[in-house]
Amino acid sequence: MNVEDLGEFGLIERLQSMIDARQGTINGLLLGIGDDAAAWKTVTGTEVASTDTMVAGVHFLPDKMPWDAIGWKAIASNLSDIAAMGCEPRFALVTLGLPPETPVAWLDALYEGMLDCTEAHGGTIVGGDIVASPVFFVTVSLTGFTTGLVMTRASAKAGDRIAVTGALGGSAGGLQLLLEKTSGDEPVTTSLLEAHFRPVPQVAAGLALVRAGITTAIDLSDGLVGDLERLCRASGVAARIEADAVPLHPALAKVFPNDSIQLALTGGEDYQLLFTAEEALLDKVRKVLPDPPVVIGTVVEGEPGQVDVLDEQGNIMVLPLTGWDHLRKSPA
Amino acid sequence: MNVEDLGEFGLIERLQSMIDARQGTINGLLLGIGDDAAAWKTVTGTEVASTDTMVAGVHFLPDKMPWDAIGWKAIASNLSDIAAMGCEPRFALVTLGLPPETPVAWLDALYEGMLDCTEAHGGTIVGGDIVASPVFFVTVSLTGFTTGLVMTRASAKAGDRIAVTGALGGSAGGLQLLLEKTSGDEPVTTSLLEAHFRPVPQVAAGLALVRAGITTAIDLSDGLVGDLERLCRASGVAARIEADAVPLHPALAKVFPNDSIQLALTGGEDYQLLFTAEEALLDKVRKVLPDPPVVIGTVVEGEPGQVDVLDEQGNIMVLPLTGWDHLRKSPA
Repeated sequence: MNVEDLGEFGLIERLQSMIDARQGTINGLLLGIGDDAAAWKTVTGTEVASTDTMVAGVHFLPDKMPWDAIGWKAIASNLSDIAAMGCEPRFALVTLGLPPETPVAWLDALYEGMLDCTEAHGGTIVGGDIVASPVFFVTVSLTGFTTGLVMTRASAKAGDRIAVTGALGGSAGGLQLLLEKTSGDEPVTTSLLEAHFRPVPQVAAGLALVRAGITTAIDLSDGLVGDLERLCRASGVAARIEADAVPLHPALAKVFPNDSIQLALTGGEDYQLLFTAEEALLDKVRKVLPDPPVVIGTVVEGEPGQVDVLDEQGNIMVLPLTGWDHLRKSPA
Repeated sequence: MNVEDLGEFGLIERLQSMIDARQGTINGLLLGIGDDAAAWKTVTGTEVASTDTMVAGVHFLPDKMPWDAIGWKAIASNLSDIAAMGCEPRFALVTLGLPPETPVAWLDALYEGMLDCTEAHGGTIVGGDIVASPVFFVTVSLTGFTTGLVMTRASAKAGDRIAVTGALGGSAGGLQLLLEKTSGDEPVTTSLLEAHFRPVPQVAAGLALVRAGITTAIDLSDGLVGDLERLCRASGVAARIEADAVPLHPALAKVFPNDSIQLALTGGEDYQLLFTAEEALLDKVRKVLPDPPVVIGTVVEGEPGQVDVLDEQGNIMVLPLTGWDHLRKSPA
């Protein structure tokens, strides 16, 4: 059965039943799926909102990625943005662009993956839109909330240390496996594929960072160097990082011994957080994060947005690619 | 110049400049375009959120519709949802799916149209996402706010009168002109094209309705009969409307003398509001709406979602099409 057989109303009813069965009653929600808009109660504080889109053939290869993983990642990428602000994830609107021949079973799996991710890391699906489209796409917009301050990209200062919340390159390694190799089922390849299919948004880490007093963060969605460039541009500073300080996904060295550093520096979609902090504050942060952060470099004065990566000898490395320009090339 | 020449960062900078120049400082906004998420202050009340998507070739024909009109309508369709809830429009996230060969001039016009609509009817653009896509699409998600109650689709009661805030069928008439005729520039055809290109979201009417005590409303985006069916299904009631009571766009009778009622009953995208009210409340509403509402029928007990349209003789009309099923056919 495909979505054209089921029709819009049948499909909405089916997905709504699945969502209701898994989400149950949602705290503060007044109206969910089925009206002109979702509605929820607000209290005094700060709300944030982010949106991310995945287009078939551009952001993922539908014949190589399970549909539950596509759903997981559509939610995870948005949770990651909310995490980078230091907020609690709240309400998600999901828009699907569907070719009429899309099998309904794919959408069942897509929603299972989305609900797996919200159950594990926060947020609830409260509405959206379904439209016909010649290409499949999924757009999620997600709100977050805090009664405190939010972290931004714009407050890094020269002298701050630069740290990340966890290992990098795993998702890019998994993508390489999908594109180049028969992956097999050894634990190392499985763990890279898992990092690509189900990256973990650092919601708890984001909340811990902001509570500890961190004010500057960004999520690593497009690659360490490219995202750090954005943070530096927004803050009017430059940065220097040491390549051998960058924490590598544990399977990378075995599966991609020659490319592991490159994958960790420029590969996207790990969804770890990068933050900056004065040295004194770092000690405090170490005590509250779920996993110990890794210091990879320092904020310096210089051309805003300039990021130098130093090799073991202290020489500036030349990187073939620093972050994705989404309009210029297709990552997958 | 197309978007591939400009690249993602160049394009974002260009659009951000345009948006900043027109929107100026935004009340309550803490962070706009350029961070992981937009951020704004909240106070105690109710927030609503809606999202709508337009896909080239599905929801509009890019060679027949000016790009500023596409932008206007992308915002207007969302404002209309917020209006139907009786809320003030607030913050919009705009996602663009762009083929690399999209001329930048089209996007300039798209954003002019979006900003024309927010300036005229409310809401501000505070963020979004730009992705590569083989087909152009634009997704807008928009929040709204009220310190009072919201209107829903679910509270209509048998005996309520059914009313609309203004004339119908103009947008569908404009679409027919685009598809079938050389439209020329006589005032009647121009006014239908204008109704199709720049439908007016009934934000002020929605606010007036909810203040007057109306609790049940829906916006007419997919056609009078289809949308009334949705409202009736949500409320567990049926409805009876009189075809000759339905207010027609003034140009319809001249340009489409044989199809005007059909266009008003089933044509979409007029963005008028439909609401239900006890007779006594209607008098109160008449005094506060910008334009006088038109009573077109009555809520009755019956099969939930059943809508009967009666002709002049009181016979039930058979309609070929009641509302769009977005997955089964393409409106344009």
